[in-house]
Amino acid sequence: MLAEHMTWVEYQEAVKKIVILPLGAFEQHGPHLPLNVDVVIPSRLAECAAEQLEGMVLPAINYGYKSQPTSGGGPLFPGTTSLDGETLIHLILDILRDTYRHGGRKFLLLNGHYENMAFATEAVDLFLREAKDARLVILAWWDIVSEKLVKEIWAEAGFPGWDTEHASIAETSLMLYFTPEHVRVDKIVDDQSERTPPYAIFPPPADIVPKSGVLYKATYASQAKGEMLAKEITESIVRIVRQELA
Amino acid sequence: MLAEHMTWVEYQEAVKKIVILPLGAFEQHGPHLPLNVDVVIPSRLAECAAEQLEGMVLPAINYGYKSQPTSGGGPLFPGTTSLDGETLIHLILDILRDTYRHGGRKFLLLNGHYENMAFATEAVDLFLREAKDARLVILAWWDIVSEKLVKEIWAEAGFPGWDTEHASIAETSLMLYFTPEHVRVDKIVDDQSERTPPYAIFPPPADIVPKSGVLYKATYASQAKGEMLAKEITESIVRIVRQELA
Amino acid sequence: MLAEHMTWVEYQEAVKKIVILPLGAFEQHGPHLPLNVDVVIPSRLAECAAEQLEGMVLPAINYGYKSQPTSGGGPLFPGTTSLDGETLIHLILDILRDTYRHGGRKFLLLNGHYENMAFATEAVDLFLREAKDARLVILAWWDIVSEKLVKEIWAEAGFPGWDTEHASIAETSLMLYFTPEHVRVDKIVDDQSERTPPYAIFPPPADIVPKSGVLYKATYASQAKGEMLAKEITESIVRIVRQELA
Amino acid sequence: MLAEHMTWVEYQEAVKKIVILPLGAFEQHGPHLPLNVDVVIPSRLAECAAEQLEGMVLPAINYGYKSQPTSGGGPLFPGTTSLDGETLIHLILDILRDTYRHGGRKFLLLNGHYENMAFATEAVDLFLREAKDARLVILAWWDIVSEKLVKEIWAEAGFPGWDTEHASIAETSLMLYFTPEHVRVDKIVDDQSERTPPYAIFPPPADIVPKSGVLYKATYASQAKGEMLAKEITESIVRIVRQELA
Amino acid sequence: MLAEHMTWVEYQEAVKKIVILPLGAFEQHGPHLPLNVDVVIPSRLAECAAEQLEGMVLPAINYGYKSQPTSGGGPLFPGTTSLDGETLIHLILDILRDTYRHGGRKFLLLNGHYENMAFATEAVDLFLREAKDARLVILAWWDIVSEKLVKEIWAEAGFPGWDTEHASIAETSLMLYFTPEHVRVDKIVDDQSERTPPYAIFPPPADIVPKSGVLYKATYASQAKGEMLAKEITESIVRIVRQELA
Amino acid sequence: MLAEHMTWVEYQEAVKKIVILPLGAFEQHGPHLPLNVDVVIPSRLAECAAEQLEGMVLPAINYGYKSQPTSGGGPLFPGTTSLDGETLIHLILDILRDTYRHGGRKFLLLNGHYENMAFATEAVDLFLREAKDARLVILAWWDIVSEKLVKEIWAEAGFPGWDTEHASIAETSLMLYFTPEHVRVDKIVDDQSERTPPYAIFPPPADIVPKSGVLYKATYASQAKGEMLAKEITESIVRIVRQELA
Repeated sequence: MLAEHMTWVEYQEAVKKIVILPLGAFEQHGPHLPLNVDVVIPSRLAECAAEQLEGMVLPAINYGYKSQPTSGGGPLFPGTTSLDGETLIHLILDILRDTYRHGGRKFLLLNGHYENMAFATEAVDLFLREAKDARLVILAWWDIVSEKLVKEIWAEAGFPGWDTEHASIAETSLMLYFTPEHVRVDKIVDDQSERTPPYAIFPPPADIVPKSGVLYKATYASQAKGEMLAKEITESIVRIVRQELA
Repeated sequence: MLAEHMTWVEYQEAVKKIVILPLGAFEQHGPHLPLNVDVVIPSRLAECAAEQLEGMVLPAINYGYKSQPTSGGGPLFPGTTSLDGETLIHLILDILRDTYRHGGRKFLLLNGHYENMAFATEAVDLFLREAKDARLVILAWWDIVSEKLVKEIWAEAGFPGWDTEHASIAETSLMLYFTPEHVRVDKIVDDQSERTPPYAIFPPPADIVPKSGVLYKATYASQAKGEMLAKEITESIVRIVRQELA
Repeated sequence: MLAEHMTWVEYQEAVKKIVILPLGAFEQHGPHLPLNVDVVIPSRLAECAAEQLEGMVLPAINYGYKSQPTSGGGPLFPGTTSLDGETLIHLILDILRDTYRHGGRKFLLLNGHYENMAFATEAVDLFLREAKDARLVILAWWDIVSEKLVKEIWAEAGFPGWDTEHASIAETSLMLYFTPEHVRVDKIVDDQSERTPPYAIFPPPADIVPKSGVLYKATYASQAKGEMLAKEITESIVRIVRQELA
Repeated sequence: MLAEHMTWVEYQEAVKKIVILPLGAFEQHGPHLPLNVDVVIPSRLAECAAEQLEGMVLPAINYGYKSQPTSGGGPLFPGTTSLDGETLIHLILDILRDTYRHGGRKFLLLNGHYENMAFATEAVDLFLREAKDARLVILAWWDIVSEKLVKEIWAEAGFPGWDTEHASIAETSLMLYFTPEHVRVDKIVDDQSERTPPYAIFPPPADIVPKSGVLYKATYASQAKGEMLAKEITESIVRIVRQELA
Repeated sequence: MLAEHMTWVEYQEAVKKIVILPLGAFEQHGPHLPLNVDVVIPSRLAECAAEQLEGMVLPAINYGYKSQPTSGGGPLFPGTTSLDGETLIHLILDILRDTYRHGGRKFLLLNGHYENMAFATEAVDLFLREAKDARLVILAWWDIVSEKLVKEIWAEAGFPGWDTEHASIAETSLMLYFTPEHVRVDKIVDDQSERTPPYAIFPPPADIVPKSGVLYKATYASQAKGEMLAKEITESIVRIVRQELA
Repeated sequence: MLAEHMTWVEYQEAVKKIVILPLGAFEQHGPHLPLNVDVVIPSRLAECAAEQLEGMVLPAINYGYKSQPTSGGGPLFPGTTSLDGETLIHLILDILRDTYRHGGRKFLLLNGHYENMAFATEAVDLFLREAKDARLVILAWWDIVSEKLVKEIWAEAGFPGWDTEHASIAETSLMLYFTPEHVRVDKIVDDQSERTPPYAIFPPPADIVPKSGVLYKATYASQAKGEMLAKEITESIVRIVRQELA
């Protein structure tokens, strides 16, 4: 499933099926999660889905668009290393173009970093000017979590909306499920900014970003919740791909 | 207040106060609204706010980023005329840079078109690499409507979320309030797509875009609702600017 | 005629006829004229011509290329807010490309700001690489004023050439005709630079730019002259479009 | 004087004086003149001026911006090989930037191809964002020919304006003076387009470009006229540089 | 050592030491090696070196510049997925810029894909325009293998030069050492193109690329040779970094 | 043969044959050679080859990519004036595109400056996306010198490899053969850097660049060696072009 482990001989067949490109980032995720959370989650979900879809997973975009203060802590947190919008657009576009040249026609861009969405959309729009017969889906994993599961997982803590779920219950749970060895369980905290304005302020004032980089109650995370999320999201991805790219 | 009507002599004082740049688009808004809805609404709100703030309103960005199917009908509707992401980034950046050169330090980017947000954010990020002492707010008018007012205005129709409010109750009401002469009241319809998937599909299938270009129940719009929206939004803008850019 | 007031339903027919894109700027025009002179004049001329041609007028380019000292006062005048060359090229290109996608084939780019010309030309050249069957005219309104009318209008003041007519008789007269409410008649002055070298100097020395931003004798302007200009230019535009884009 | 013949040891002193960059093109100039007319003329004028100014002449820009039909025959003539606007801007900018790094502060951009002007201006504007203490003049050689000399040289043929002087009396005369061995004297013709509209048409119709590529009466050219032009222009360049860049 | 596994708290100290960015590619490496060879080798060497240097390894560039026929089989091999030059330049530049913002001053760019070199160099040159006090080394692992070791490892097969060593003894041996589970030992072949011209031909004729994608004698590879290479290269990297970036 | 001396009438036939574009640079070459060595050598070789091939030589790229310390002395030597990578890519691309438009299909890019290679390759790759039936060879003159001739010419001095041959025996000999009037024979020196590391260091330390800019033993140069090199290289070019572009 992982294109990076294939030889070119294997790749040439695999590319004709479903091609999944995980879109990640290199971004702070609190004192307990590694900087590659946004790469790990979509990559592992992509693997799970690819297994059922007989799809192929391309190497992930491992640096993404600039983290914003109220959805990820913002650019000033140490570690958060981001691309200019134009760079990310062309990075995704070039990968799509070359994969198309090799025969790829059906693409899932599986996003793990909110701020990537608009630039991935632009890359796809530019790609379609050339690749008239390609079909693509861009999907952020949190956008397809069912209301039912949200109620279940955030039953105790209360659901704050996906924006402020950064480095909190969903991401911590998924990391506990996918790579528990990289979660510093003793460092997990609940935190929040003093306020979350519904607009963007530049440069960001201190009170809109929590000191820890955790935007909500990460202590409510668990491996079991991670498993529930991973399984439901995988099923949904498989269903969506079959429906939209069949 | 309108910079376009000022002479350079008047401008040189005005630029030192609050500078408002409305971010619009040229986009289909159903069979009853003109193509410039996304310019008119933020421009008129900007004027209302500027009056109280003694601010200056720059000429609006009158072409915006590409309309997406589930939030605006998408690029295939006749009329919708959009800029590439890079063009929009540089358009906003150049205007900010030159205004800064003339003494502008406090900027409100008042957005009327959802798809502009990420590219406006990128423009501001690039701007701040040069303009170390500038301060900016980017604000989309719908993001600051209070829950209380949402309940009141969508009491009968039910609130579908802002995404699908395109060309519907809020925009039609605001246009009835600001420029009733451009609303074809006899053409107002309720409509909706067959489905609104929580992911993007390229090219967009027919069933995710309503035929009319109206994404919800526009017939529930009224001038009175437009007035209520305009007044509350204006007050909020004034309060936000005073708080964040004072 | 104004595309911005059309609905998409109306636009889809109108785009197949003549499409006029006014090219303006945001530039100082002396102590008596507003900063949007270069938008107002081509936009209003476009409307006049479109009426006779059954053409459609797109929203104007409202920020243009950088004003030069000897033809517009230069970039250092407060208010003059300009785009980099690459931004303007792509702004015009994107608008042409999307309008072509909707069925536009016949375009008039009606320019009101001298410095835009080369960049509009480049945009059109890039556009024609893709749009093989499009036909376009780029026209600056002053370039089609007849010698006869020049003699008549500048009979008293003497014609200094179009370069130094900035914010002077022609533009002031046209603004008195089109939007007299925005002309500060009590502020109209005659002025000129100490010298007008036939080459460009960077950075511009003070003696090549008049203090007022008026480059010639604006006091000789009148509404009647504005009407004469507007009528002749409109007739010429109509004739040219019929001849070249029929 | 020619930087290309200097060693780096010689260059390091020379760069501190006046630096002249000739701006040329590779463009058709009728059946009698070589494709490098627009390089030869400003390069040779630059040498003449540099001798008196103790200046240094950089290697010329040998491909320029796109020839336009009514000022050079247009892009469809065989041979005319041009750069996109953005390429030319960056080509000039990079050369200025590196020369500045070596100590260059006083620059003359001596243009031999009309269509280069706006893009050279943009390059200089971008350059000055970085090079705060640089001073530059951009000058096209025809713009500084005195009225007196125009009257003398075009006494018989009549002066048609500089636009249509392409490949005609001035350029042919200068080439007869500078490099007579490259002028096909037996191929010199008078020609003209059927019409010269005061606007641009895309794609260009056949009747606005003369078949030969000569836009006026080249048979009136002579080596003597070339010498008169060369000497006057050189003197003017020297005077202008001394005045503006001293 | 791996920045991707660090939290932001850990990263903020680590970034002040040596920062290593592996430069890889996604490129065919014969029927026996996976497509990520050029990522694995520099990443693993970076880890080995970072251990001794107390350095930090950033996530690798996982798509590189376009493979050339005579050094990697060329772009037409299935799987080889490459970036345009400009994209790669900006990708590396953006990562350097943001890492510098967090305090990084000493950088090793450790390259595993020949074709990346010039574009990495350009990225660094642009970076140094802004980051005046940064110090960097760009190093391709094969360029620092000692002559002594070359003689030893290629004793039997003969050393063909590094260009044609693609997917051959060195890379196969290193992969057998680093990730033997991804080497298809039963698919290892010796191969070569019919000719290796000392110039580039576009489009590439069939006889300059071997059918298998292996450019030399891969059967002479062994895990032991991989270990020898890895150890010597690691030692050299450590020595070089200590010498040049101390 | 020289396109710059042709008229458009002559060019239109010549372009259909072999088109040679010399790729040069403006770069220091020691205290004895002029700054245009990298333009002169490929231009003169191109002329020699074109004579036998009935080919056409375009005006050379006269500014190239950035000189590197260990192959050319680096950017800090006075005189070395270079283009950004993107500028060079587009410069070459634009020339190829327009020449193709005029009927050119067979191109030799004859390089005289090592650092140009990757950017010329990128330009050709972008060109081939549009020009499906074009065929090109990119060739650096030193890469085709036979081993036999290397042995002969470097018999006394010893061959140091082409990298450090900068401004040394080969280039000095070729300049003595092609333009002896521009060689300062009294300034010829032998020199070398204290060390030539097999990796790049930024900023370059003083000990990797020789003070003179000569990287090896220029005193072993002679006009006779220049003639031997020129003749063999010309023959090889002719043979290669006939073989690859026939």
